[in-house]
Amino acid sequence: MAKVAVILSGCGVFDGAEIHESVLTLMSLEEKGAEYQCFAPNVNQHHVINHLNGEEMAETRNVLVESARIARGNVKPVTELDASQFDALLFPGGFGAAKNLSDFAFKGKDCQVEPNTLKAAQAFAQANKPIGFICIAPAMIPQVYGESAQLTIGNDADTAAAIEAMGGNHICCPVDEFVVDEAHKVVSTPAYMLAGNISEAASGIRKLVSKVLELV
Amino acid sequence: MAKVAVILSGCGVFDGAEIHESVLTLMSLEEKGAEYQCFAPNVNQHHVINHLNGEEMAETRNVLVESARIARGNVKPVTELDASQFDALLFPGGFGAAKNLSDFAFKGKDCQVEPNTLKAAQAFAQANKPIGFICIAPAMIPQVYGESAQLTIGNDADTAAAIEAMGGNHICCPVDEFVVDEAHKVVSTPAYMLAGNISEAASGIRKLVSKVLELV
Repeated sequence: MAKVAVILSGCGVFDGAEIHESVLTLMSLEEKGAEYQCFAPNVNQHHVINHLNGEEMAETRNVLVESARIARGNVKPVTELDASQFDALLFPGGFGAAKNLSDFAFKGKDCQVEPNTLKAAQAFAQANKPIGFICIAPAMIPQVYGESAQLTIGNDADTAAAIEAMGGNHICCPVDEFVVDEAHKVVSTPAYMLAGNISEAASGIRKLVSKVLELV
Repeated sequence: MAKVAVILSGCGVFDGAEIHESVLTLMSLEEKGAEYQCFAPNVNQHHVINHLNGEEMAETRNVLVESARIARGNVKPVTELDASQFDALLFPGGFGAAKNLSDFAFKGKDCQVEPNTLKAAQAFAQANKPIGFICIAPAMIPQVYGESAQLTIGNDADTAAAIEAMGGNHICCPVDEFVVDEAHKVVSTPAYMLAGNISEAASGIRKLVSKVLELV
């Protein structure tokens, strides 16, 4: 039975992990017979967005604490993620991947990945263990691998250009498919970069999870 | 195409709507070809629980605003729910159903359902339109119907006894099944009252959604 680490970035599409993508990722792992453990960085969210009206709220929330909502309490600090204990790593999307796990949403091609998240992901990459990136999370791929890897965030030209400027090799991809870089064992799928509903997001995420497990 | 209203109770199992159950409910509706619209009461949560350590936090959060995280912004106040515009109603579970939509978690058999939520649900009941209740949400059934209806919350004896004391007719039920009261068109399933993982919760929720749509 494959053991898979999942790194969450909060709880809610506009300031954290995309909830549907996160649940679909965990359910797909279960359906394929894999075990999983959720992790998240123990840092404050970049900000808190009122998901009803889109406005910023005068609150502070912690990424690890809010991620625990999706994980029903069972989430560990990403500093405790030991790549040698897992076969693969998955990153659901949501703005949290671009606001909390990195600052791609604000700095584009000049972004940095959160240091402990970067360290964890690089340990998987260096061990040639597969990593799956969903939605906007592939924006972290160039820094994780430090060299060009094939990836997708769907078909958004500006986002793709920023990722190419960091050294990524962006390939357009429909919502129900994925892009795989076999050499790096990197798999990515657009999910809510393109999806209009949960089922569309599910179609690509299920295929991504299958491919990641196949690469184990 | 059936139109289904879904009432959420926040975002997170310990103080709001159970996230997995909510996503599975919405996805099951999509998979069966039904349209849905999410609603939630515009009231403050009873409290905010840190889902990492289980402790109460010194914060105030609004049920409608937090529910918008699950609904990706597309949620309306329950006061705008007009039963004549929908074919069925669904209540995912989580402690939010027993802390925000009602106070069953604190008052047991002496609980009250939040007035606007009660009014909305009673409009469906009075129109003999089906309602599905998931997890702990069936604790609201006796007040919604005002007479005995068959229901399940799984097999927890104390919870079942409190619901029976309110006039409910509790029937033990495994996680992958549901209980239906055909006369009242009420369907219930235990989900995370019994589920050990997402797939187990999904098995009963998918069947409940199918049955509710069959009763439309």
